Amino acid sequence: MKELQKYIRDIADFPKPGIIYKDITPLLQNPGATERTTLALLDFLRDSSIDKVVGIESRGFFFATLLAQRLGAGFVPVRKPGKLPFETHRESYSLEYGEDVLEVHVDAIQKGEKVLIHDDVLATGGTAAAACKLVEKMGGEIIQCNFLMDLAFLNGKEKLKGYEVTSLFTF
Amino acid sequence: MKELQKYIRDIADFPKPGIIYKDITPLLQNPGATERTTLALLDFLRDSSIDKVVGIESRGFFFATLLAQRLGAGFVPVRKPGKLPFETHRESYSLEYGEDVLEVHVDAIQKGEKVLIHDDVLATGGTAAAACKLVEKMGGEIIQCNFLMDLAFLNGKEKLKGYEVTSLFTF
Repeated sequence: MKELQKYIRDIADFPKPGIIYKDITPLLQNPGATERTTLALLDFLRDSSIDKVVGIESRGFFFATLLAQRLGAGFVPVRKPGKLPFETHRESYSLEYGEDVLEVHVDAIQKGEKVLIHDDVLATGGTAAAACKLVEKMGGEIIQCNFLMDLAFLNGKEKLKGYEVTSLFTF
Repeated sequence: MKELQKYIRDIADFPKPGIIYKDITPLLQNPGATERTTLALLDFLRDSSIDKVVGIESRGFFFATLLAQRLGAGFVPVRKPGKLPFETHRESYSLEYGEDVLEVHVDAIQKGEKVLIHDDVLATGGTAAAACKLVEKMGGEIIQCNFLMDLAFLNGKEKLKGYEVTSLFTF
């Protein structure tokens, strides 16, 4: 993973002072690194069968589509409010200040389908936990939540207790 | 293409009254249809070599990552303002009311690289034309702009004169 980690760029004070943002665009620009990252994420699944890969808006979309394609699974976007045009389920979650909402189309997942949740970063875990609730509302079975990066000092895994949580890089 | 078109769902009055929104989530949910769509978009390129695939935020990301992976090319996101953390080039474009801005990282494309621009929908063409300008500002050569859908009644091709423009579906 050290070899891949060099494609993740630290940006100081983004989006606000004191935060070091992990920029994955150098990784995405490099097709070989992107492929090795995809394969490493797939390794976490140890050949589990997956029906749907849920990608969380919007940086979760990048690898979720690639994972879905490799798994022969459908891709399902979970989005911020007002973006999905059909009937949706909604789930709100807490932010540092206030709250936000995620939505998914009501026909995105069928009862009993096996689901992989993917996002680029596991931070406080609020977003991923809301995505898990949306999937379970539709009767989906969550096989794993996988992330490129776990910002472990934010303790996101706490909010995902009971789920298998994996990540390629820990910061 | 008729066979794939059935996975595109019409949603009346979204995002506002009088507009029929073309929802591609049923297509993305179906792995076979997603693969056939990817291959059909690749066919437009007739084996042209591509170094970078530019996906336009955010529904352009879905197929742009898949196209890049198949082409062995890098993926470059073009995003709304304030989303990209590193130094960016900016390009503004007109909307029905007012204007909007697109950004790309200044190191996303190297001089002389061959570029495919992808978005889900060609509407008025303003967004895609702005993406083309950003690519050319960095010295990239635009090989093609491809889209899932061309809303031909909006005449988007007019704004992309001089570029090869292809789309799978025309409405």
